[in-house]
Amino acid sequence: MTERIELAEPVLRANDIVARRVRRLLEEAGVYAFNLISSPGSGKTSLLVRLLEMLRGELRMLVLVGDVQTDNDARRLRHTGVEAVQIVTGGTCHLEAPSIERQLIGRRLAELDLLIIENVGNLVCPTGYDLGEDAKVVALSVAEGDDKPEKYPGIFARADAVLLTKTDLLPHVPFDPRAAEGHIRRLQPDVPIFPVSALRDEGVAAFADWIRARAGR
Amino acid sequence: MTERIELAEPVLRANDIVARRVRRLLEEAGVYAFNLISSPGSGKTSLLVRLLEMLRGELRMLVLVGDVQTDNDARRLRHTGVEAVQIVTGGTCHLEAPSIERQLIGRRLAELDLLIIENVGNLVCPTGYDLGEDAKVVALSVAEGDDKPEKYPGIFARADAVLLTKTDLLPHVPFDPRAAEGHIRRLQPDVPIFPVSALRDEGVAAFADWIRARAGR
Repeated sequence: MTERIELAEPVLRANDIVARRVRRLLEEAGVYAFNLISSPGSGKTSLLVRLLEMLRGELRMLVLVGDVQTDNDARRLRHTGVEAVQIVTGGTCHLEAPSIERQLIGRRLAELDLLIIENVGNLVCPTGYDLGEDAKVVALSVAEGDDKPEKYPGIFARADAVLLTKTDLLPHVPFDPRAAEGHIRRLQPDVPIFPVSALRDEGVAAFADWIRARAGR
Repeated sequence: MTERIELAEPVLRANDIVARRVRRLLEEAGVYAFNLISSPGSGKTSLLVRLLEMLRGELRMLVLVGDVQTDNDARRLRHTGVEAVQIVTGGTCHLEAPSIERQLIGRRLAELDLLIIENVGNLVCPTGYDLGEDAKVVALSVAEGDDKPEKYPGIFARADAVLLTKTDLLPHVPFDPRAAEGHIRRLQPDVPIFPVSALRDEGVAAFADWIRARAGR
């Protein structure tokens, strides 16, 4: 236990120093940033494609996408016309602040309104890494089961908003939305929860409104 | 980068020393062990419940279940009558060999045929941690998308068998089994792939046969 703490602390502290610099850069330029976190395959990219389509006429956006391998997600997101940069982490299970800072330095941030960071698919590792974002948004697919907030409390306790994704699958999976909501509310009584289906384009508009209220010019 | 390597190597090496001891313990007692790895919510526990029900008359089994929080999974597994021990990792995103060794020491291992280790839900972190198992079995739910083997190649390249779970959802999700198989076969041409639905009890028998051929007395 002692060993783990000794190893983890200096890394976290270095990350936090850079995260603070990132936060200042974004604040000074008036850019709102959210960090989207979930398991692999919870539908983050499909959701973002719909969100970008909804907001592209109003907000100037940049997406940074973390993945262990491939630039599939950035390529999908670019079809919306919004700039998306893939960050391939190699073996690493989360994004860290220096990767974000590297992408922001030299950019005209004043020409942006919204920075979206799609983290590596992982419900544990991104929890402890501040990326300088204004909000953490956690996505949970209904196919994963309503017990996940109870099993991964660290990330749900830090969420500023929760997306229940792939609600089109609700008739086909043993997922009780009230149970999931109960688990989330025990960790955070007031966090907004958005049920969404990117496939059926349901619920995404409500989440887009939440973003607009924060990132609007 | 250098810093990361310096931090990670001694930890891995210590884990490997213990993993070797675990492997020797199991070999001497004639126990076959597999390490089940997947994303959160891919259906590992439901699959194991069916597997235990199928094998409980033939094989003497023990299940060790890793989770960040809760003992929900061990409680579900115990309903089958098979002993299941929960290992709560706190914040840690994978199981390590010392947690496994601790559970095995003092047990009459000669009275066991099969040790099942259900790892923490995570497609990245468990990859580098040998637990002394004979085989790594990787589960991928069809709800997660057919691109996951390409995005998380580390774990699929090390799999001794792959389970495509929740196949009952195939009519409702954009998952192409041939594309998924193609991605897996590019990493490992000969790995066995078992499509399974624990909910409909389809395909689990074929995986049980694969286990029987390895753990049978």
